[in-house]
Amino acid sequence: MTPQSIPCDNTSTFQQVDIDLADRSYRILIGSGLLDNAESYAGLPQAATALIVTNITVAPLYAQRLRTALAGRFRTVHTVELPDGEAFKSWETLNRIFDALLANSCDRKTVLFALGGGVVGDMTGFAAASYMRGVPFVQVPTTLLSQVDSSVGGKTGVNHPMGKNMVGAFYQPVRVVCDLKALQTLPVREMSAGLAEVIKYGPIADGAFFDWLEANMSEFRADNAELLSLAVQRSCEIKSWVVAQDEREVGVRAILNFGHTFGHAIEAGMGYGTWLHGEAVGCGMVMAAHLSHRLGFVNQAYVDRLSALIAAAGLPTSGPVLVNSRGDASADIYLGHMRVDKKAEGGQVKFVLVNSDGQARLAAAEDAVVREVLGATCEA
Amino acid sequence: MTPQSIPCDNTSTFQQVDIDLADRSYRILIGSGLLDNAESYAGLPQAATALIVTNITVAPLYAQRLRTALAGRFRTVHTVELPDGEAFKSWETLNRIFDALLANSCDRKTVLFALGGGVVGDMTGFAAASYMRGVPFVQVPTTLLSQVDSSVGGKTGVNHPMGKNMVGAFYQPVRVVCDLKALQTLPVREMSAGLAEVIKYGPIADGAFFDWLEANMSEFRADNAELLSLAVQRSCEIKSWVVAQDEREVGVRAILNFGHTFGHAIEAGMGYGTWLHGEAVGCGMVMAAHLSHRLGFVNQAYVDRLSALIAAAGLPTSGPVLVNSRGDASADIYLGHMRVDKKAEGGQVKFVLVNSDGQARLAAAEDAVVREVLGATCEA
Repeated sequence: MTPQSIPCDNTSTFQQVDIDLADRSYRILIGSGLLDNAESYAGLPQAATALIVTNITVAPLYAQRLRTALAGRFRTVHTVELPDGEAFKSWETLNRIFDALLANSCDRKTVLFALGGGVVGDMTGFAAASYMRGVPFVQVPTTLLSQVDSSVGGKTGVNHPMGKNMVGAFYQPVRVVCDLKALQTLPVREMSAGLAEVIKYGPIADGAFFDWLEANMSEFRADNAELLSLAVQRSCEIKSWVVAQDEREVGVRAILNFGHTFGHAIEAGMGYGTWLHGEAVGCGMVMAAHLSHRLGFVNQAYVDRLSALIAAAGLPTSGPVLVNSRGDASADIYLGHMRVDKKAEGGQVKFVLVNSDGQARLAAAEDAVVREVLGATCEA
Repeated sequence: MTPQSIPCDNTSTFQQVDIDLADRSYRILIGSGLLDNAESYAGLPQAATALIVTNITVAPLYAQRLRTALAGRFRTVHTVELPDGEAFKSWETLNRIFDALLANSCDRKTVLFALGGGVVGDMTGFAAASYMRGVPFVQVPTTLLSQVDSSVGGKTGVNHPMGKNMVGAFYQPVRVVCDLKALQTLPVREMSAGLAEVIKYGPIADGAFFDWLEANMSEFRADNAELLSLAVQRSCEIKSWVVAQDEREVGVRAILNFGHTFGHAIEAGMGYGTWLHGEAVGCGMVMAAHLSHRLGFVNQAYVDRLSALIAAAGLPTSGPVLVNSRGDASADIYLGHMRVDKKAEGGQVKFVLVNSDGQARLAAAEDAVVREVLGATCEA
């Protein structure tokens, strides 16, 4: 696969990517100004009520605009504002969505709208999967990370104190509306975090996209709608292609977790929300590249090249030293968190490894080798 | 449909009912002594670990026996014991299952076993649907109600303070093992509650089964394995037939909720667990029959006949007067609870109504008519 040349107009036109999952198929719309445009929501299921789920940071910027765009489709549009951040991706916050649904007498046809980043999207999706055993929902991602990754593919859920995304559902949205203009209000640190998930698609599936990102990384800015549109579209295309083959991650879909086994250990070890998810994944990809090198799949030049791209995106390439109350060694803490990773089976950790042909595979690795990688990639 | 004549041996043989749901199809086994028999679990997915979820009442009776039967299939079999009763069908109790799964490093292949009644089955099913976004589970129902109804069909979930089963998933088990011997330890009140769901299948789908139940109700006892086997099998056949047509309850499946709209209002209004679910459904069927009569679908003789069968099963046929802290009238409290019923749409309550040909339909009813029914069927 190579990125196709796509005409892009940053004023009014939009791109679309269709995700093919039989009766759960849906369309991803990508463009500037889509959030405000009632046409973006044409064809959604009919219902009397809608509930916008957002957070206290995003609500003042976009909630009223989305309400206005939806006013012609729903008799009543309710809004619930959650606290902001990965630390609130919990049962307790999820329950606030259910409370809002029930307090407003929302029924089985009510449509939920996830307005925000990955945390809002994942929790809204799980609430939609579970409320009355399933109501429709729409993703309106306002961060780069959620536009290129978390809003597409139907992974929903919340964290458990003992592991990230341990409780959730595979539940597909009925539409994804990626408004590139929303990225203009995104802090630089969050843009970088989103670029981690964009970069991911190169090593695992598309060498030409890797080349293109290297050539253009210095030009990525929130107001460069043309570059962003291409990056979001290509990311969604690759993700859709993978998800359509393996919706429930029994096989190939696991390659989308490149960098995530190490990354989840960083997030859990530091406390969710200390590092952004994308920052942990960026650093985790450096670690996974080192591991791929030690196992003979790529050479040192590849590791250096990927590390440089991740650094150019403004992401960390060295891991934190983890500490806990028991005084365990950092590598032991990393390994402990990895053993509850969802890809682990019978206590054996599985890693996504890459080769220099742009292909990925799932494989186990000896603890000793993982320790070497951690020694080489973590700060002293 | 009429019940077929089925040879039944209460010592060793068993009956089976297959439920046809494409890649989610599974088999229901019905017989005496199945729980202890390793053969009942042949062909289940391979895994290193299993988790038995049960409650403090059932555990001393059957947990060790199930562990023994599973010992040859799983390297490790863990057990978690929940508190007993509908009042504990909550987020908090559900979380104890997730805690047990994570504390024991259970992975994506771990098989859950729901050992108990409907509450254990519904919560275990929802935990299985949600843990790591889905692991396999087996229903081992030990109450009549769960054998004939709740363990079959994939409805899982927990209650919310504002409504019963408001949060959950459609998620099918990989097998259902109905051991009739387990019913011998069931309190008489629970047997009666289970008979409510057995009786339900007559009015909604099978006039001959209604006749058969009338003729045999006085002989139903926990040690009458022949009658029980026939009743469980016919109930499972009718439920399977309905669920296979409409797994996610967008249409015909709603008829399985005959008596449940009134019944859920009784349960919510009295506080979950005050009346058993089957008791509330029994009384709810009397109310729904009255409503069907007032709307012209059945005559008074039909109402009397169904009421007599429900009374003969040891179930209440008069509803409680509901009270709340605001001092609302009982009928208003009933109607308030019904409006959050999952079958309600846009605030309009839908009821399952029956006719004398053994057919059911979903229909709305004027509040005034529902008030008349409540006036005629509730205690003064």
